[in-house]
Amino acid sequence: MAVYTEVSDEELQAFIAGYDLGNVLSFKGIAEGVENTNYLVRTEAGPHILTLYEKRVREEDLPFFLGLMEHLAASGLACPVPVRDREGQMLREVAGRPAAIITFLDGLWVRRPSTEHCAALGETLARLHLAGQTFSMTRPNALSVTGWRPLYDASGARADEIVDGLHEELGRELDELEAKWPTDLPQGIIHADLFPDNVFFLGRDVSGVIDFYFACNDALAYDIAICLNAWCFEVDAAFNITKARALLRAYTYVRPFSKEEFDALPILARGAAMRFLLTRVYDWLNTSSDALVRPKDPNEYVRKLRFHRGVTSTREYGLGE
Amino acid sequence: MAVYTEVSDEELQAFIAGYDLGNVLSFKGIAEGVENTNYLVRTEAGPHILTLYEKRVREEDLPFFLGLMEHLAASGLACPVPVRDREGQMLREVAGRPAAIITFLDGLWVRRPSTEHCAALGETLARLHLAGQTFSMTRPNALSVTGWRPLYDASGARADEIVDGLHEELGRELDELEAKWPTDLPQGIIHADLFPDNVFFLGRDVSGVIDFYFACNDALAYDIAICLNAWCFEVDAAFNITKARALLRAYTYVRPFSKEEFDALPILARGAAMRFLLTRVYDWLNTSSDALVRPKDPNEYVRKLRFHRGVTSTREYGLGE
Repeated sequence: MAVYTEVSDEELQAFIAGYDLGNVLSFKGIAEGVENTNYLVRTEAGPHILTLYEKRVREEDLPFFLGLMEHLAASGLACPVPVRDREGQMLREVAGRPAAIITFLDGLWVRRPSTEHCAALGETLARLHLAGQTFSMTRPNALSVTGWRPLYDASGARADEIVDGLHEELGRELDELEAKWPTDLPQGIIHADLFPDNVFFLGRDVSGVIDFYFACNDALAYDIAICLNAWCFEVDAAFNITKARALLRAYTYVRPFSKEEFDALPILARGAAMRFLLTRVYDWLNTSSDALVRPKDPNEYVRKLRFHRGVTSTREYGLGE
Repeated sequence: MAVYTEVSDEELQAFIAGYDLGNVLSFKGIAEGVENTNYLVRTEAGPHILTLYEKRVREEDLPFFLGLMEHLAASGLACPVPVRDREGQMLREVAGRPAAIITFLDGLWVRRPSTEHCAALGETLARLHLAGQTFSMTRPNALSVTGWRPLYDASGARADEIVDGLHEELGRELDELEAKWPTDLPQGIIHADLFPDNVFFLGRDVSGVIDFYFACNDALAYDIAICLNAWCFEVDAAFNITKARALLRAYTYVRPFSKEEFDALPILARGAAMRFLLTRVYDWLNTSSDALVRPKDPNEYVRKLRFHRGVTSTREYGLGE
């Protein structure tokens, strides 16, 4: 939660004048978003989000992200839509940063998702995957299995500062994941970061999915594995099979699993736990103490990884074949 | 800029249900406000601000602050109005913190105030002072001259870590301020923290004054002295007499100075610079490096204090008698 880049009123007004949005009525930095700076801008045309893309987002990826949001919204998925300026551009610049105006979505993200929320998530994720099938741009997943070893090496033995023996444990895990990682699963656009703070609800209904800045092409079932990790554990790290069952059933009701996907889910879930554990370990060891954003605790994902390592069948996640 | 206290969706909805505001549509932490946690809450009744009062605000002062906002708004000043719940309460509790819902004000705070902005500020400040004359509650100014020596002593010789010789310089300054501080000036409610980020504009017009959490009873002219410091210096620390003249003329057009106020302004401006310098020095020396809010640079106020020390008459601020 941070505002990394300040925007002066002159810069803001010159920027907004390029759009068909009328005058600016209000402008507030939002304490959300770890990677980018977000402002809530109210104009005569209503509320919008102004996002300034900071250094962790590669500028050459922005047309993919913005194009994807526009495509998914046009396909009927509730997600922010980049607003085009008077010249038809979605990507512009303000305060020396690449920037875009996107539509504002009503809704709240749920701090403690219920089983009903997990079911609604499953349905939405399946619809996102189906809508993504007709998107023509592609972006490889830099944080899939081939990206993990460089991350692992970057932290090295310092991982033991977090949990004694973690470096060796992750090394063995990585060897196994690299050896067993499935490569023949149905591919498509995945969100790749669908944590609870990226899904807005009004009551029990999903009102929108946000933050597509990790979206990429990968195995669709890997996205589900990320959600199993992010939505189906309790605060005490206990796996909640009722929530997992609700998520998986709702997903497969819209988009049924292939036999290969069903079989692969436990290893995908281990991989997803590994992916978030590796970035958290790296951030934990490399975030300076005066950073605006506090790194997330890696321990949560150590426990999740160990849980999935003990799972031998997707039935243990609550889904029958 | 920080969200110190997280509010769960359950807590939020239970809290909002106590008001006549309908359902919650959106809820976002705002990256503004150093002392408190602020959320923008959109409900069916429109946008509001939810403020959670953190530890630096004394709970026993809250009825004064909330009552003052209600009084000033009723007197026609554009400022946030605390919303009363179904039982008539303005001050409630959420997530273990004292909390209030206040109305949302349109407008932008100006990063680089112009002469026109300074004039609009002067008029608004005078109207605030007049409206405050009929407010019945009182609160002493803990950060006036009697509060400075304890702050000075709390930093002690460590002030020299910021500017070599600063401890001695401030000691001499404090002796002189204590000896010469005027006590016979017209008193009333002052804002006491009217920096540019606390005044919203739509174009050249003030659309609202916010953040009354330092408001107190003190010499009215001291509030003007704070504004001279906060609005009338350029980024390079040069005093802008054109802006000061605009501020003072607009103020005195609405509320003329007494002879004593006119004569006292230079010492009040030194005192105001001292007050912000002392808290900045203290915060600079005592903010842990992992704090969510970075302390403000004290050097800016060292330069301002030295400037005012060289001023012998209010005429040097651009105002004739």
